Amino acid sequence: PNRRAVGDARDRQGRMTKPPGALGVLEDISVQLAGLAGECPPPVPEPAAVAIFAGDHGVHAQGVTSWPQEVTTQMVHNFLDGGAVVNAFADQVGAEVTVVDVGVIGDLPGVPGLLPRKIARGTADCTQGPAMTRTQAGYAIEAGIEVARDLVAAGNRCLVTGDMGIANTTPSAALIAAFTGRDPAEVTGRGTGLDDAAHERKIEVVRRALEANDIDPGDPVGVLAAVGGLEHAALTGFVLGAAALRVPVLLDGVIAGAASLAVAALAPDALHACVAGHRSSEPGHAAVLEHLGLRPLVDLELRLGEGSGALLALPLMQGAVRALRDVATFDAAGVTERR
Amino acid sequence: PNRRAVGDARDRQGRMTKPPGALGVLEDISVQLAGLAGECPPPVPEPAAVAIFAGDHGVHAQGVTSWPQEVTTQMVHNFLDGGAVVNAFADQVGAEVTVVDVGVIGDLPGVPGLLPRKIARGTADCTQGPAMTRTQAGYAIEAGIEVARDLVAAGNRCLVTGDMGIANTTPSAALIAAFTGRDPAEVTGRGTGLDDAAHERKIEVVRRALEANDIDPGDPVGVLAAVGGLEHAALTGFVLGAAALRVPVLLDGVIAGAASLAVAALAPDALHACVAGHRSSEPGHAAVLEHLGLRPLVDLELRLGEGSGALLALPLMQGAVRALRDVATFDAAGVTERR
Repeated sequence: PNRRAVGDARDRQGRMTKPPGALGVLEDISVQLAGLAGECPPPVPEPAAVAIFAGDHGVHAQGVTSWPQEVTTQMVHNFLDGGAVVNAFADQVGAEVTVVDVGVIGDLPGVPGLLPRKIARGTADCTQGPAMTRTQAGYAIEAGIEVARDLVAAGNRCLVTGDMGIANTTPSAALIAAFTGRDPAEVTGRGTGLDDAAHERKIEVVRRALEANDIDPGDPVGVLAAVGGLEHAALTGFVLGAAALRVPVLLDGVIAGAASLAVAALAPDALHACVAGHRSSEPGHAAVLEHLGLRPLVDLELRLGEGSGALLALPLMQGAVRALRDVATFDAAGVTERR
Repeated sequence: PNRRAVGDARDRQGRMTKPPGALGVLEDISVQLAGLAGECPPPVPEPAAVAIFAGDHGVHAQGVTSWPQEVTTQMVHNFLDGGAVVNAFADQVGAEVTVVDVGVIGDLPGVPGLLPRKIARGTADCTQGPAMTRTQAGYAIEAGIEVARDLVAAGNRCLVTGDMGIANTTPSAALIAAFTGRDPAEVTGRGTGLDDAAHERKIEVVRRALEANDIDPGDPVGVLAAVGGLEHAALTGFVLGAAALRVPVLLDGVIAGAASLAVAALAPDALHACVAGHRSSEPGHAAVLEHLGLRPLVDLELRLGEGSGALLALPLMQGAVRALRDVATFDAAGVTERR
């Protein structure tokens, strides 16, 4: 972060017509984004674009979810038809929706709004060995970097992470366990709604995935290839790409959270571009936020994914910057400061 | 609330292309607003208007704040000039700002955006007897009802509470203690930033205000007159007016929270129109939310007032309704439900 811009932003927060500190967490966000942009005030992070990275998962065969695998493809169609929650929230906050196929099993149509970047038709089953080759993981990271670059080149000043992939809370849990060192039982959740017995089986699947692979947290690409998903790898690149362009990224829930651990392991400085959009009800997400020291802006027991939680946080982040930019100082407004 | 609309909304939340319950608190909000409107889906709560009720406080003489009293008038000018945080946030979320002078000491200009409804030049010092006459409190309540009616007649489909009044966390604490039965020490905060000694003195002032008056929680108008402010009474009317028109009200922080206790005492059904916009860092506000069973949408350690926290919650509430209205069902989208 640019120290002068950080200092200017802190100073301005103290001279704005409000009690010092009265904007709480949003003051920190405004300072962070000033440091990222290298100027105070930083640009208001709009327009914004959410990129939904979609992929399928070989570990689905282990019965980790009650949703059929074809729902990944069906939901991509739903996104393209504008019928999903992410579309409704994007409409509400004025964000653009782009779907990126990095690994959906089904064939998808060549239509606007869908970027065809299919690297494989789903990953392999990570309980039997690596989910991807290292080359595939690298291609997915590159795809994510390029999507970030293209969305910024198109004029976007904020990127929002989205994801779709039936079963993808399972590789998320494996990644989180691998990078944080926590036990799978602590970071494996019920996803979109498992009962107790199915939850226990899912924890065992995560444990077996970690045992079936050589896990070295010092080799983040290797970890992504071993137990991650194509969307996790692409999201890792997406964050890296945005950070390199000094454009803020709003992180959604546990899938983006798992990817952000890979980001932290590859290039810790890239986290300066990241704002945690929300806290999902998945336990692994809380572990990520704690590990990275991120404070989420929205905390409403959402557990949907797609980028839905991060989109809801967008106006809060924009408001934080707009206040820093637009609010009059005591001097300028002729308001008396406290004694 | 309308039971059929509530049932329809719950049912639709279960058929939308998302796991049941995945929108967490926002599903409850959408159901609440369906019940309020009497139809499913309810109208998206936009456009929205924030009304900033402004007044001064005789209890300022007791040294409960380090801010000079003239700051109330100065900040009203700042609102009218568009230089305050509430203006920046309103711009961000597309809300209209109206200032209502119900009791500012200073003279204010006759300009658009300011409604002159001055009932008194500030309240009397509530440590010496009632802050207002019962007649004055009644006038303020009426003023609030009429502002709600006028803003809805102008086409607004969501009202947002705002307030300005140097020292007004002190009458808020007194109202909260009176209506919840809690001890002043539990519900009196540091306002815009007091040190320990000043905080102790403020608690004592609240205690003396409650002792200097006959407090009967069963007589809410009497309580407002005794220890409230003109803006608290007006906010009480504002909520009652909105609820009568079945228009949702987003409540800001501790000042609106104190007023909502008077609403609950006068007409508990009116709370069905209320959504807690945020949780402020004032301890009295947490007491209000607990007492009324309200779950705030935003929780970011804000402690500014003006309506700032509630405005940030507006896109979340709007998103909740927009999802209920726009998201495709499994049947319609051709998405397979889980097994």
